[in-house]
Amino acid sequence: MKRPDLARQLVDVGRAFYSRGWVMGTSGNFSAVLSTRPLRLLITPSAAHKGRLAARDFLQIDADGRVLGRSRGRPSAETRLHLEIVNSRGAGCVLHTHSVWSTILSERHRDRGGLTIQGLEMLKGLDGVTTHDHEEWVPILANDQDMTRLSSRLRDTLAEHRTAHAILLSGHGLYTWGRTIADAERQIEILEFLFEVIGTRER
Amino acid sequence: MKRPDLARQLVDVGRAFYSRGWVMGTSGNFSAVLSTRPLRLLITPSAAHKGRLAARDFLQIDADGRVLGRSRGRPSAETRLHLEIVNSRGAGCVLHTHSVWSTILSERHRDRGGLTIQGLEMLKGLDGVTTHDHEEWVPILANDQDMTRLSSRLRDTLAEHRTAHAILLSGHGLYTWGRTIADAERQIEILEFLFEVIGTRER
Amino acid sequence: MKRPDLARQLVDVGRAFYSRGWVMGTSGNFSAVLSTRPLRLLITPSAAHKGRLAARDFLQIDADGRVLGRSRGRPSAETRLHLEIVNSRGAGCVLHTHSVWSTILSERHRDRGGLTIQGLEMLKGLDGVTTHDHEEWVPILANDQDMTRLSSRLRDTLAEHRTAHAILLSGHGLYTWGRTIADAERQIEILEFLFEVIGTRER
Amino acid sequence: MKRPDLARQLVDVGRAFYSRGWVMGTSGNFSAVLSTRPLRLLITPSAAHKGRLAARDFLQIDADGRVLGRSRGRPSAETRLHLEIVNSRGAGCVLHTHSVWSTILSERHRDRGGLTIQGLEMLKGLDGVTTHDHEEWVPILANDQDMTRLSSRLRDTLAEHRTAHAILLSGHGLYTWGRTIADAERQIEILEFLFEVIGTRER
Repeated sequence: MKRPDLARQLVDVGRAFYSRGWVMGTSGNFSAVLSTRPLRLLITPSAAHKGRLAARDFLQIDADGRVLGRSRGRPSAETRLHLEIVNSRGAGCVLHTHSVWSTILSERHRDRGGLTIQGLEMLKGLDGVTTHDHEEWVPILANDQDMTRLSSRLRDTLAEHRTAHAILLSGHGLYTWGRTIADAERQIEILEFLFEVIGTRER
Repeated sequence: MKRPDLARQLVDVGRAFYSRGWVMGTSGNFSAVLSTRPLRLLITPSAAHKGRLAARDFLQIDADGRVLGRSRGRPSAETRLHLEIVNSRGAGCVLHTHSVWSTILSERHRDRGGLTIQGLEMLKGLDGVTTHDHEEWVPILANDQDMTRLSSRLRDTLAEHRTAHAILLSGHGLYTWGRTIADAERQIEILEFLFEVIGTRER
Repeated sequence: MKRPDLARQLVDVGRAFYSRGWVMGTSGNFSAVLSTRPLRLLITPSAAHKGRLAARDFLQIDADGRVLGRSRGRPSAETRLHLEIVNSRGAGCVLHTHSVWSTILSERHRDRGGLTIQGLEMLKGLDGVTTHDHEEWVPILANDQDMTRLSSRLRDTLAEHRTAHAILLSGHGLYTWGRTIADAERQIEILEFLFEVIGTRER
Repeated sequence: MKRPDLARQLVDVGRAFYSRGWVMGTSGNFSAVLSTRPLRLLITPSAAHKGRLAARDFLQIDADGRVLGRSRGRPSAETRLHLEIVNSRGAGCVLHTHSVWSTILSERHRDRGGLTIQGLEMLKGLDGVTTHDHEEWVPILANDQDMTRLSSRLRDTLAEHRTAHAILLSGHGLYTWGRTIADAERQIEILEFLFEVIGTRER
């Protein structure tokens, strides 16, 4: 798929997530792979409102997070996290949201290092899961403003939990990914639904 | 009603349910009867996003769940459940949703085999109910990925509870039906409302 | 204001309330006064979906609830309640909604015969209230399918509580009114907000 | 920016906030600075529905809250609060909302004189905050219908808490501000999100 198509799709993702309250303020960031050799990533600029993105707002970066071409914006501060996920999982799209439930659950379960979701039909929406009788471990990383340190811990976590479909940052939000933008968007919907079920049930 | 009209109506149902968070990811499935002799059912394809259906996405199946005509998609994995309901209830439309509240209540009340809703005016929205002084039993079936076994249990449950307007699958979601698509849609709205009242009240 | 304008306004009210989940299924009903001498009321037909009304769906009734002119529909079963309110309060519009919170609170406070709302700035949105330091008593009537009996009890309650801005029917919903459609709509918004605050706080 | 542009932006803010339930009834009010020398403020009229504002509804006032030019409306009763904030903070825009969560939290934490928000990534959406490891104190003022007294207390509070990004009025709602309308809108989104997280967590 070409850059304009990917950008348009991410604009729509932003609008949909904003209407559900998952990217309030300037929170959240999205990326999609333009090419793999060399790696070129389309990514949301820092401090943009995700519900009102325009296709021209997106930046193109390389494997080191450097912006290519002329551009006014800076890439999202969390660019390195996107690159780690693309490298570790071979993802074509990485989506990051900040919802009320992912914030609450990521704090509540932080000391256990993650949370388990099991026995729910909705799990079948995760890539490769074929039964509700599945145990999904969502690792939770402590939040950190030092992106070098955080991306290194993320790399280790992704390597340790090869089957995880998502990562939570404590008090911060959710990262998930997919082969395509539609796949990653579906996983955000699935996980946010599951977090709401678990959060409401636990109270 | 003709196929294009039924398909268009189901597309609108999908959009409305998606906006309320009842068919997140690729969850949920919908069907409508095209003809009864021989039985022809219009049904959502497997793994489709229910908020962004197009009329051409729907499949036409026969009484054994075989796809008729040329089509790229596979019918929903839960096709047999739709056929059981159509056969048992003479329904013209079957709708299945996965909401947060139906997921929570279907797990919470599973061991009792169902849940009772009574004394609420909203019950009058269910087909044939004329007073709030009504006791609605919603049977809950354990979830199962074996569709032959699950559809057989569903058949028995429908036979045992002749007056039930709906069935819950545990940790999975809601099935209801109606003579028309509008009737089934109304019942989904009524039941989701009642589940939210009960779930909120029980906490 | 003329009939087409009133009908169009009520169509918009229905759409707005439906999007907020206050008139799910075919619940709720709305009326507006066309003329006072003789009394002519525009009212929603029975069993209509309030989110998808058309201006032509509305019925015109007289002071005894009889339908005037040619019409396919029957007036709402709760027509007598609308007439009582118009007569008692001189209202130009009566709106009835079924929300999750009005259902829960009307059951929870039924045995006390009503609920008090006080100390909240939002109370100033009620007609004639000029300070948050106001005590609003919302009477709760037991629900009843006998409309003659219920409307008689409503008449007594309206006479007894001359300053009440609204009435709850237990397990059923909210009635409020205003000089204009906009006034009644504003009061529904205010009361539903206040019910959500109280219901959430009480848990 | 010119008056029509500012008015149009505030109309959009009203629509967005209304859809989220933050300015129900006729609650809330918005202002934007047209010029600083002399001070000219565009402000919502009293008793307007914030979800259905038109650009022509806005009033222009001076530093004493007097309406300039021909106008049918009266400025919002809380005009003095807007002027205090503009003077104290050099804000270009002041936004006031009434949400369910700000109402609940402002009452729950009133006796402590404010509430602390800390450790959450979303705090970085507040002006000048660069880490989740930030402690935000949101002062809570007792509600008051005497605007002279309330604006005097607000002035003192703003002077005492130089770094506060927002003020809560007890049982009433939230005030925040920004250099631009977009900045103030972003802070409302951030704070409402944080209130929902805290309110849900505390239960």
